[in-house]
Amino acid sequence: MPILELRVLEGYTENDKSRMGHVLTDAIRMVVPAPPEAVTVMIHEMPHTSYMRGREHRVPAPALPDPVNVARTFLSAMEARDLEAAQKMLGPDFTMTFPGAPQMHSLDALIQWAAPRYRFVTKTYDGFDALQSPAEHAIVYCRGSLSGEWPDGTSFEGIRFIDRFEITAGLLTRQDVWNDIAEHKVKT
Amino acid sequence: MPILELRVLEGYTENDKSRMGHVLTDAIRMVVPAPPEAVTVMIHEMPHTSYMRGREHRVPAPALPDPVNVARTFLSAMEARDLEAAQKMLGPDFTMTFPGAPQMHSLDALIQWAAPRYRFVTKTYDGFDALQSPAEHAIVYCRGSLSGEWPDGTSFEGIRFIDRFEITAGLLTRQDVWNDIAEHKVKT
Amino acid sequence: MPILELRVLEGYTENDKSRMGHVLTDAIRMVVPAPPEAVTVMIHEMPHTSYMRGREHRVPAPALPDPVNVARTFLSAMEARDLEAAQKMLGPDFTMTFPGAPQMHSLDALIQWAAPRYRFVTKTYDGFDALQSPAEHAIVYCRGSLSGEWPDGTSFEGIRFIDRFEITAGLLTRQDVWNDIAEHKVKT
Amino acid sequence: MPILELRVLEGYTENDKSRMGHVLTDAIRMVVPAPPEAVTVMIHEMPHTSYMRGREHRVPAPALPDPVNVARTFLSAMEARDLEAAQKMLGPDFTMTFPGAPQMHSLDALIQWAAPRYRFVTKTYDGFDALQSPAEHAIVYCRGSLSGEWPDGTSFEGIRFIDRFEITAGLLTRQDVWNDIAEHKVKT
Amino acid sequence: MPILELRVLEGYTENDKSRMGHVLTDAIRMVVPAPPEAVTVMIHEMPHTSYMRGREHRVPAPALPDPVNVARTFLSAMEARDLEAAQKMLGPDFTMTFPGAPQMHSLDALIQWAAPRYRFVTKTYDGFDALQSPAEHAIVYCRGSLSGEWPDGTSFEGIRFIDRFEITAGLLTRQDVWNDIAEHKVKT
Amino acid sequence: MPILELRVLEGYTENDKSRMGHVLTDAIRMVVPAPPEAVTVMIHEMPHTSYMRGREHRVPAPALPDPVNVARTFLSAMEARDLEAAQKMLGPDFTMTFPGAPQMHSLDALIQWAAPRYRFVTKTYDGFDALQSPAEHAIVYCRGSLSGEWPDGTSFEGIRFIDRFEITAGLLTRQDVWNDIAEHKVKT
Repeated sequence: MPILELRVLEGYTENDKSRMGHVLTDAIRMVVPAPPEAVTVMIHEMPHTSYMRGREHRVPAPALPDPVNVARTFLSAMEARDLEAAQKMLGPDFTMTFPGAPQMHSLDALIQWAAPRYRFVTKTYDGFDALQSPAEHAIVYCRGSLSGEWPDGTSFEGIRFIDRFEITAGLLTRQDVWNDIAEHKVKT
Repeated sequence: MPILELRVLEGYTENDKSRMGHVLTDAIRMVVPAPPEAVTVMIHEMPHTSYMRGREHRVPAPALPDPVNVARTFLSAMEARDLEAAQKMLGPDFTMTFPGAPQMHSLDALIQWAAPRYRFVTKTYDGFDALQSPAEHAIVYCRGSLSGEWPDGTSFEGIRFIDRFEITAGLLTRQDVWNDIAEHKVKT
Repeated sequence: MPILELRVLEGYTENDKSRMGHVLTDAIRMVVPAPPEAVTVMIHEMPHTSYMRGREHRVPAPALPDPVNVARTFLSAMEARDLEAAQKMLGPDFTMTFPGAPQMHSLDALIQWAAPRYRFVTKTYDGFDALQSPAEHAIVYCRGSLSGEWPDGTSFEGIRFIDRFEITAGLLTRQDVWNDIAEHKVKT
Repeated sequence: MPILELRVLEGYTENDKSRMGHVLTDAIRMVVPAPPEAVTVMIHEMPHTSYMRGREHRVPAPALPDPVNVARTFLSAMEARDLEAAQKMLGPDFTMTFPGAPQMHSLDALIQWAAPRYRFVTKTYDGFDALQSPAEHAIVYCRGSLSGEWPDGTSFEGIRFIDRFEITAGLLTRQDVWNDIAEHKVKT
Repeated sequence: MPILELRVLEGYTENDKSRMGHVLTDAIRMVVPAPPEAVTVMIHEMPHTSYMRGREHRVPAPALPDPVNVARTFLSAMEARDLEAAQKMLGPDFTMTFPGAPQMHSLDALIQWAAPRYRFVTKTYDGFDALQSPAEHAIVYCRGSLSGEWPDGTSFEGIRFIDRFEITAGLLTRQDVWNDIAEHKVKT
Repeated sequence: MPILELRVLEGYTENDKSRMGHVLTDAIRMVVPAPPEAVTVMIHEMPHTSYMRGREHRVPAPALPDPVNVARTFLSAMEARDLEAAQKMLGPDFTMTFPGAPQMHSLDALIQWAAPRYRFVTKTYDGFDALQSPAEHAIVYCRGSLSGEWPDGTSFEGIRFIDRFEITAGLLTRQDVWNDIAEHKVKT
């Protein structure tokens, strides 16, 4: 115990079902102090011909992409300066908040703002955390350390950062960034 | 759909069961694109006399405290400088990482480190996010803005911050903090 | 087999649950050729604290009255000329259709229309049939034979009739009547 | 809520399962005041190798035909005077009761009785209602209006009628008819 | 896994439910190679107002006594020569088969037959095994060793025995006994 | 009632599932006084992609062989003196206890011990009883009568016997034998 049974319409992939099992196992453990080994999840897929609500059979909606994957893919595209790919991952009303910057709404604005600040930045990840909000968006946190080069060509590394993303229907709608760059500059 | 059925041993409070319903509803929505209204959760409590594993009846473990409440209570105690209360909420091997500070292990070290940095700080919260890791700890994020007074008596406000807590069995085992204090100092 | 399991919120009476069992047993037998003895119904009542949809606990709606009882009560009130009681059982937009009569909307209209046709009528019931429409109303049929007195004081009996009622939220919204009164008159 | 789960042996068609969903949705709504959208039906088909009663696997009985279809088919055959087809749909001990007629037991008797009454009759349907009795038979009501020609060649239309059928194992065992033909004759 | 769910009518004692859990856990392990710890049993008791078969609510039958207890009680009564108590535990058509004895039908016959064979016998039990036959009776085996006194007053001990009982509705209907008494006599 | 639902991982044969149905039907009848016809067993097989414990999908363990078949096969091999086949069916630490014999651990020892006792023995079976112990082994009882030839060539028959086997993971780990051979010798 606990034993979780999930009924969904048939049509999800094995990977989708593994993800369902993982999020449910983790979720219940936030309330019930059970080790993962004590949590059983059984997923019962209903053929749509065997399920009816409101006197009508229903079709399943395709699974949402893993929000951690969405965030990772976006971060990789940004790091590779593949702005076209990154741009396609943005939802309407996307906003970005970086330390010391005004709220920005486009990748171009970000690139322009960053230009005088560093030549390039590479992220090393310590971990990702993902959760679903009660609203429509999922939330992804990623944290780790930054390395790269300052505009004067000197290099830096080991600067802590954390990003928070809001992702709706697989598209990024918000990014908030915190890091120790200023702290680093104050020190040096 | 989806329909979630949870079987747990009898003995949880109404509030525990509401929390179970909430975390499960949110969790499945990270994979299945359903609005909350389409998610049904049914909790079946088994009297321990009706449940048996390994030929033995079992007793339920008490619910874990809401990790958001744990983090909030700790933050309030710290803000009120009630170090005794705050100290009681720390688990073994507690570590704290603040911007520009060495890793710290005690509240005393933190107080000492902060003394030359600000007279006091008050937090205004924009939001809390909580999730359970696959390991033993839950994770709580809280973000918002800092206001307070610098050592010279001038006041500040609107400085962005984010805290990340790891909470095991109701006790804090790790705190990581990011904020724009240095950014602020660089600017001023 | 078949085995039917019903999950409803807690709060229904024993009689409500017996009615649920009866209507479900009968319904499935319209498709599956099983004798009643082969049909099992299990009703699982969920405490509202254990049920959640859309992240909210829900309260059960009180059971609808048995539509056969509603029709019977109305017919008894009419037979007893207790127009006040009968009137209270009518829903908005109530319509009545009797053989050879224009569509009527009030009991007064009916009384007036019937006055020259018979002094009184008593119904002997052969049977009631009830079903729920896919729309909001339930449907009740009652059939049997009429006896009574013509305006000239001569008596009659054994005249076949059938009534069809539509009942919404316990109130009558439509009554259609067929009978052999004219047939009788043609003959005599 | 309510949530209905039905377990039957595997082997029913998609149409059978849709019918099961419909009759159960409608049935429970006769007691629980829920709109159809609030009623979920899940049909779990058991392979016969996974189901056992009395230490024996069982095979499913084929679904009964939709009684409304049975009644419609019979009425069409009668209207088309395809007596052979209509005759095949009659069960043993079939009885017919028409306004002003003695109880009849064969289609020939009906044809003979009707001959001096009208040349032909066509039915326009306002609706069908079907339900399963607690006994073996299903019940179908159909109502609407009659049009056709009297023996003298004059035509008629708009005469209200209602038929009640009892159907056992897909065969008609009883028909009761009410209509306003006599009422019409009285008036004209 | 495996996970067993049992639905029974409400009214069984805690001890009854423990026994149900034990027999089901053991039974499934005869087919599925799972240690007991991997077998979960959940017993769902249905209030009789929530259960219906054949359109009728049902009442639960009281649990059968533990057949091992029945056998033990009988053996104790026999050992204590409480023939009255033992006699009450016998069902109709009780038969006893002992090594070298004709089939017997009464305790008196047994006592008479045993008289010249030993003065008294005491049983030390190595174990009991119980199972339910597909027919009405349960079966209990008990084995161990006999000690006692021969008619000449010399004592014996350590003579192996095994008894097989058939128990129907809590009453003994058959006893078969094997032991090494003759083997012992041959040797001595 | 009772209604038993079993959830196991997918991958069992039809015969495995029939055996599961039989052992569960019999088991519950040891406690609940229901005839077999009142016991329903439904086996729900979970695809391993739909089942997760401890955040991991699981694979089913192959079913254990029917212990009665194991015992029968061993007895047949012994009767046919196919010692090689019989030997392969023995688990580690196999022990045999026969009337009047020291505990033996090998088939050779048994053959040697039996040589001066009878030329050959054939078993006629009256019945087999099988059950699973709470420990790892299943238990099989078989009883009936022995016929054969004594060392002097005279034949015998109708000598009662009972064997008790312990079977772990399909291998015999213990055999205990009781019979009336000595009783027979005493008499003759």
